[in-house]
Amino acid sequence: MEAITGQELIRAVALLGAGIAMGLGAIGPGIGEGFVAGKACEALGKRPDQSQLITRTMIIGQAISETTGIYSLIVALILIFVV
Amino acid sequence: MEAITGQELIRAVALLGAGIAMGLGAIGPGIGEGFVAGKACEALGKRPDQSQLITRTMIIGQAISETTGIYSLIVALILIFVV
Amino acid sequence: MEAITGQELIRAVALLGAGIAMGLGAIGPGIGEGFVAGKACEALGKRPDQSQLITRTMIIGQAISETTGIYSLIVALILIFVV
Amino acid sequence: MEAITGQELIRAVALLGAGIAMGLGAIGPGIGEGFVAGKACEALGKRPDQSQLITRTMIIGQAISETTGIYSLIVALILIFVV
Amino acid sequence: MEAITGQELIRAVALLGAGIAMGLGAIGPGIGEGFVAGKACEALGKRPDQSQLITRTMIIGQAISETTGIYSLIVALILIFVV
Amino acid sequence: MEAITGQELIRAVALLGAGIAMGLGAIGPGIGEGFVAGKACEALGKRPDQSQLITRTMIIGQAISETTGIYSLIVALILIFVV
Amino acid sequence: MEAITGQELIRAVALLGAGIAMGLGAIGPGIGEGFVAGKACEALGKRPDQSQLITRTMIIGQAISETTGIYSLIVALILIFVV
Amino acid sequence: MEAITGQELIRAVALLGAGIAMGLGAIGPGIGEGFVAGKACEALGKRPDQSQLITRTMIIGQAISETTGIYSLIVALILIFVV
Amino acid sequence: MEAITGQELIRAVALLGAGIAMGLGAIGPGIGEGFVAGKACEALGKRPDQSQLITRTMIIGQAISETTGIYSLIVALILIFVV
Amino acid sequence: MEAITGQELIRAVALLGAGIAMGLGAIGPGIGEGFVAGKACEALGKRPDQSQLITRTMIIGQAISETTGIYSLIVALILIFVV
Amino acid sequence: MEAITGQELIRAVALLGAGIAMGLGAIGPGIGEGFVAGKACEALGKRPDQSQLITRTMIIGQAISETTGIYSLIVALILIFVV
Amino acid sequence: MEAITGQELIRAVALLGAGIAMGLGAIGPGIGEGFVAGKACEALGKRPDQSQLITRTMIIGQAISETTGIYSLIVALILIFVV
Amino acid sequence: MEAITGQELIRAVALLGAGIAMGLGAIGPGIGEGFVAGKACEALGKRPDQSQLITRTMIIGQAISETTGIYSLIVALILIFVV
Amino acid sequence: MEAITGQELIRAVALLGAGIAMGLGAIGPGIGEGFVAGKACEALGKRPDQSQLITRTMIIGQAISETTGIYSLIVALILIFVV
Repeated sequence: MEAITGQELIRAVALLGAGIAMGLGAIGPGIGEGFVAGKACEALGKRPDQSQLITRTMIIGQAISETTGIYSLIVALILIFVV
Repeated sequence: MEAITGQELIRAVALLGAGIAMGLGAIGPGIGEGFVAGKACEALGKRPDQSQLITRTMIIGQAISETTGIYSLIVALILIFVV
Repeated sequence: MEAITGQELIRAVALLGAGIAMGLGAIGPGIGEGFVAGKACEALGKRPDQSQLITRTMIIGQAISETTGIYSLIVALILIFVV
Repeated sequence: MEAITGQELIRAVALLGAGIAMGLGAIGPGIGEGFVAGKACEALGKRPDQSQLITRTMIIGQAISETTGIYSLIVALILIFVV
Repeated sequence: MEAITGQELIRAVALLGAGIAMGLGAIGPGIGEGFVAGKACEALGKRPDQSQLITRTMIIGQAISETTGIYSLIVALILIFVV
Repeated sequence: MEAITGQELIRAVALLGAGIAMGLGAIGPGIGEGFVAGKACEALGKRPDQSQLITRTMIIGQAISETTGIYSLIVALILIFVV
Repeated sequence: MEAITGQELIRAVALLGAGIAMGLGAIGPGIGEGFVAGKACEALGKRPDQSQLITRTMIIGQAISETTGIYSLIVALILIFVV
Repeated sequence: MEAITGQELIRAVALLGAGIAMGLGAIGPGIGEGFVAGKACEALGKRPDQSQLITRTMIIGQAISETTGIYSLIVALILIFVV
Repeated sequence: MEAITGQELIRAVALLGAGIAMGLGAIGPGIGEGFVAGKACEALGKRPDQSQLITRTMIIGQAISETTGIYSLIVALILIFVV
Repeated sequence: MEAITGQELIRAVALLGAGIAMGLGAIGPGIGEGFVAGKACEALGKRPDQSQLITRTMIIGQAISETTGIYSLIVALILIFVV
Repeated sequence: MEAITGQELIRAVALLGAGIAMGLGAIGPGIGEGFVAGKACEALGKRPDQSQLITRTMIIGQAISETTGIYSLIVALILIFVV
Repeated sequence: MEAITGQELIRAVALLGAGIAMGLGAIGPGIGEGFVAGKACEALGKRPDQSQLITRTMIIGQAISETTGIYSLIVALILIFVV
Repeated sequence: MEAITGQELIRAVALLGAGIAMGLGAIGPGIGEGFVAGKACEALGKRPDQSQLITRTMIIGQAISETTGIYSLIVALILIFVV
Repeated sequence: MEAITGQELIRAVALLGAGIAMGLGAIGPGIGEGFVAGKACEALGKRPDQSQLITRTMIIGQAISETTGIYSLIVALILIFVV
């Protein structure tokens, strides 16, 4: 591999970093958001008359939990396209 | 492996990154969405008359939990086809 | 291994990535879907009269949880056949 | 190992990938399906009169959970025989 | 290790893959089937009059959970004897 | 890789570090925030009349939990753009 | 280690694979069977009059859980003696 | 990589260390603070009349839990900018 | 290490494999058997009049759980003495 | 990297050690302190009239839990600045 | 390390294997036996009049759980002294 | 790195060991002490009149749990300054 | 490191093995014995009149759980002093 | 690193082993002792009149749990100072 330049090594490592960032970064929000929706379903089973309120809170809660997953996506895309 | 150029190394690492991103990225949403649907079934067992509401909430909740899995898929496909 | 060309290295890494993607990607949905079906059985034990509703919800819930497993399969097959 | 050609390296890595894919891919469905059947037995202990319904749901639920394990088997077999 | 040919490397890697596939592949079904039988014993303690039904369901449930373990065995044996 | 300079090695390692920082850093807040929102949905199911109060507390609690995820994003972006 | 032939490398790797297969393969059944017997003891404490039934079910359940452990033993022995 | 000086190696390792420190350091506080806010929401659902007291305690508790995350940020920034 | 022959490498790897097999193989049965005995003690606290029955079942259950540990011991001893 | 002196290697390893020490050292206290504050919020929901006492105990308890995190910070700072 | 003979390599690997075998092998029994004794104490708190019976069962149960730990010790000692 | 002497290697490894010792050593006490303080807050919520007794016991319990964290600090400091 | 003899390599590996054996070997008994004493305190809170009996059982139970930790210590000391 | 003698390698490995032994060895007792003290606080909340008895038992229980942590400290100190 003597013909490999530093710029190429940087690019290769950036792509590996993108894969790691997105792969690990999807674990937390995936489990977390699932917990939110599961608890919302449970709450609906008890108070179906409040479905609009619970669903709204669920979506807000999931959207905020989503953020770290989106950060991971952003970092991965920057590592792929910008770097 | 002296005949390997930098472009080929980048491509090889990108494919490995794609595998890692999708493999790890499927763990979180898989567990999370399963939790949602399991809790929805549990809620249905208590309030079958609210089945439409609970099923709708379950699907919305799972769809949002799915997002980080889709991000992983996107990153993996970009690493395979675009890079 | 001096006779190995870059194309061959890319292919070798792609196959390793396929194995990692499918292996890890089967963990999450496998556990998640099992949780769904387990909770559905539990709910059936309480409300057998709602079996059609619960079974339908279980299958929908499992089908959505399955998606990230299918993504992993797609990525693995692309890494094997397309790359 | 200078006498190793690229085709042989690809094959060796493919076999290692097959082992990883099947090994990891059996963890999730194995635990998940066990959870289904365990919950079904629990439900039977409460409502033995619904045994046919519960057993049927258990088998459907396990069959769907099985899918990601089967995907792993398919990917492993492709990596062994087709590649 | 310069005297090692590619065919020998393939064979060595295949045997390592067999060990990994069977070792990891025994974890999931082992835990899952144990959960089934444990829950069956628990159910028997509550409804001993349904022993035949519960035992039958337990064996069916374990047999299906066993499948991914058997897949691992098959892949391991193929990696040892066929490859 | 003899043509690689120290500056290029530093840049490559920085990008890998960015991927690790963001990937791992998304696990904790993702799970934590999901727990917050799940508990908020549960609380809403019990006291829907306090929805404004609970939702406000949920958002404050998630925002504070978010901080370590944001730190990870900052460190990752510094490692990519500033270093 | 230049004097090592390919056949010797295969044998060395096979023995390592045997150790991994048996070591990992003993974790799942060990925990699973323990769960079965623990639940059986618990059930006996509630229904001692059904001891024969519960003990029989426990032994059947453990025997089936044992299978993946036996597969691991078989694979390990094949890797040691047959390969 | 013969042209790499010791100062460049130190800098590269420092950046890797920064990524590890921030990535791992975000896991604990992220989960911990989420637990605080989740329990606060739960408490609010029971005693909404004490919302000010509970919210205040939640913020104090999260702020203290935050400290180790901030330490990680500080160490990461020192490793990037000062070293 | 040029003076090392293949036979010596095989023996070294076999001993490492023995250590791994026994070390990992003791985890599962150790936890599992502890669970059995713990549950037996719990059952005795409820039904001391059935002590003979519970103790007998406990010992049978532990003996069966022990098997995978014994397999590990056998494989380890074979790897040390026979290979 | 032949131009690297021992003093530079020591410094590089010290910085890596600082990253590991702070990163791992933030996990335990972060989770632990979060548990304290979560339980304090729970207790406040039951006895709001004892808020001063509970908050004081919470802060003392968190401060003591903090210590190992501070030790990690100290060790990390010593590894960066003193060594 | 060219002066190292194969016999010395075998001995070095055997000692490493002994450390791994004993270290890992102490985890399972340590947790398991602790569970036994903890449950025994719990049972004593309920039925102190059966202390002799419970203590006897506890010691038998712990002794059997101990076995895999002893196997690990035996394998470790064989790897140190006999090999 | 040919200019590196043994004394410098020893020092580098000692610093790495210090980082590992303190980083890992902070996990256990951090979680453990948090559990103590959390349980103390819970107890205070039930018996605020015993606050002095509970707080005293909490501090003693945490101080003893702290010891292994302090051992880690001592070992880390010895590895940094004395070695 | 060409001046290193086999005897020195054996000694170095033995010391590493001692560290691994003691480090890992302290995890299990540490958690297990803590569980015993925790349950004993819980039991004392219910039956303080049986304190002598419970404390005695706790110490016996902990002493037996201690054994695998002592085995680890013995193996570590043998690896340090005898080998 | 050709100037490194075997004695220096042994010393370097011993220091690394000391770090591993103390770092890992602090996890178990740290968690275990925390469980003891947490349960003691819980017990005090129920029976404050038995504070002396519970505190005494807690300290004895923690002291015994401490032992494996102390073994780790001893092994670490021996590896640093005696070897």
